[in-house]
Amino acid sequence: MGKTVKVGVVQMQCSDDPAENLENAVRKCREAAALGAQVICLPELFLSRYFCQTEDAEFFKLAESVPGPTTERMEALAAELGVVIIASLFEERAPGLYHNTTAVLDGKHGYVGKYRKMHIPDDPRYYEKYYFAPGDLGFKVFQTEHANLGVLICWDQWYPEAARLTALKGADILFYPTAIGWHPSEREAYGAQQHGAWEVSQRAHAVANGCFVVSVNRVGFEPAADGQGAEEGIKFWGQSFVVGPDGAIVQRASVDNEEVFVVTLNLEQIAEIRHGWPFFRDRRIDAYENITRRYIDAE
Amino acid sequence: MGKTVKVGVVQMQCSDDPAENLENAVRKCREAAALGAQVICLPELFLSRYFCQTEDAEFFKLAESVPGPTTERMEALAAELGVVIIASLFEERAPGLYHNTTAVLDGKHGYVGKYRKMHIPDDPRYYEKYYFAPGDLGFKVFQTEHANLGVLICWDQWYPEAARLTALKGADILFYPTAIGWHPSEREAYGAQQHGAWEVSQRAHAVANGCFVVSVNRVGFEPAADGQGAEEGIKFWGQSFVVGPDGAIVQRASVDNEEVFVVTLNLEQIAEIRHGWPFFRDRRIDAYENITRRYIDAE
Repeated sequence: MGKTVKVGVVQMQCSDDPAENLENAVRKCREAAALGAQVICLPELFLSRYFCQTEDAEFFKLAESVPGPTTERMEALAAELGVVIIASLFEERAPGLYHNTTAVLDGKHGYVGKYRKMHIPDDPRYYEKYYFAPGDLGFKVFQTEHANLGVLICWDQWYPEAARLTALKGADILFYPTAIGWHPSEREAYGAQQHGAWEVSQRAHAVANGCFVVSVNRVGFEPAADGQGAEEGIKFWGQSFVVGPDGAIVQRASVDNEEVFVVTLNLEQIAEIRHGWPFFRDRRIDAYENITRRYIDAE
Repeated sequence: MGKTVKVGVVQMQCSDDPAENLENAVRKCREAAALGAQVICLPELFLSRYFCQTEDAEFFKLAESVPGPTTERMEALAAELGVVIIASLFEERAPGLYHNTTAVLDGKHGYVGKYRKMHIPDDPRYYEKYYFAPGDLGFKVFQTEHANLGVLICWDQWYPEAARLTALKGADILFYPTAIGWHPSEREAYGAQQHGAWEVSQRAHAVANGCFVVSVNRVGFEPAADGQGAEEGIKFWGQSFVVGPDGAIVQRASVDNEEVFVVTLNLEQIAEIRHGWPFFRDRRIDAYENITRRYIDAE
């Protein structure tokens, strides 16, 4: 193996106590570092329950500046452990202006930047458009001594454009902090298919772009804060996973439990796979301009 | 079920005798129509062996005009059977100018148009850049009474941009006539992963765009015309398949045998899936302009 990087995946359950979640995340980062991790990714909005299940202005008080108190804590932890930490946070940019933001904390260089979620969902129990303004920083790659880290967030997973643009900026690995799960009433009929589509989409990003993909989800059931019915809430999928540039699953966490795992990725596999499948070479960049249209209506 | 369409998949083996391949294709189209098919798709370049295994000017004589003799034959067959036929051909546009082209023949309206392969591969045993100029007709959707048919070809399968642009033009179904297989010497070590990446990529197109995907491959072993070693040649994968807009495989043909199958697709599933996953709504068309760049070099 040539140049390698050890990536730590922290699949965690989140309670309604931010302080408790922060300590749990810190503990799990230590665990990943003890297993040799050099780059550690936490799930989306790991400091709280997935509050977007309802629309309630009370939850804006969970937001903080980025950089801010949590990035300072994670920056110190990254320095202590000698790792890079990818931390998804609820960013307060100004009163009344919030983003779903992921910060990158480097043990050597401190806070190296943030990515603001570009694609914002709005579906029953995923009312994110209420909370988050769409990102305005574009697609981002963070250069670290271990690898070039592309950072995207959850709903971005469904957009080949997001993966492509991040890969074209030189990402070796696409990280997706995530909070996705089943409506319990749908699980039996649609659960396998929904999860399958999610995993397939991200494996395809790895193949299309010849890079690694790391998707880090939360786990467990969280009731909706409006408490409408005992069944109301989201059962998060867990099943955080790592994919190689050949599209094969490297490792996948369980569906029900918290889990920390570390995988060694051989970055030389990127060039090897791209030599076999030289997709970047043959892109028809002269014919893609309509990608910037909402829809191409018949003339 | 609301509006449905019955799609016929013709997975066939191709000999070095074009007349024999044409009769085989005609026979199999009749078979599909007898099973109720309304739209029938043939594999890529079904009239010949996959001649791109070597670079030899002799093979240019296999090319014909499109429309031309084969589309006339297929047009008559489509009219007789009351179906639409998607036929992949080696197009001579002018002496010395050739394309990898797919024609659509409608039983009621005759020749309705053609698509010229936009992404042209060039890999060991797939020397297509020698034979085919890149397509210059853009991405295409053909409206028929059964469905809006998006037509792409083989190497296009690996490009999310091609699927996206065709879907944005209103395709209900993306058809991919294909000729893909293993180098026999690689099959044991890489065969499963190569095939897996291919299938995953196309399932992801169905998910990302909320449409059906139909991929029609050839089957069997074809020796290289230059006869360099008994092992030299391509073992085509077969495994033609149909995917729903939820990303689930509807049906898949065998790896080794010719096969004709017909599936009934419920086109109302497209809106149903897109209502659950409204990906088109949230595309960041304000932030995709760099898709038209070859690579986004660091500044």
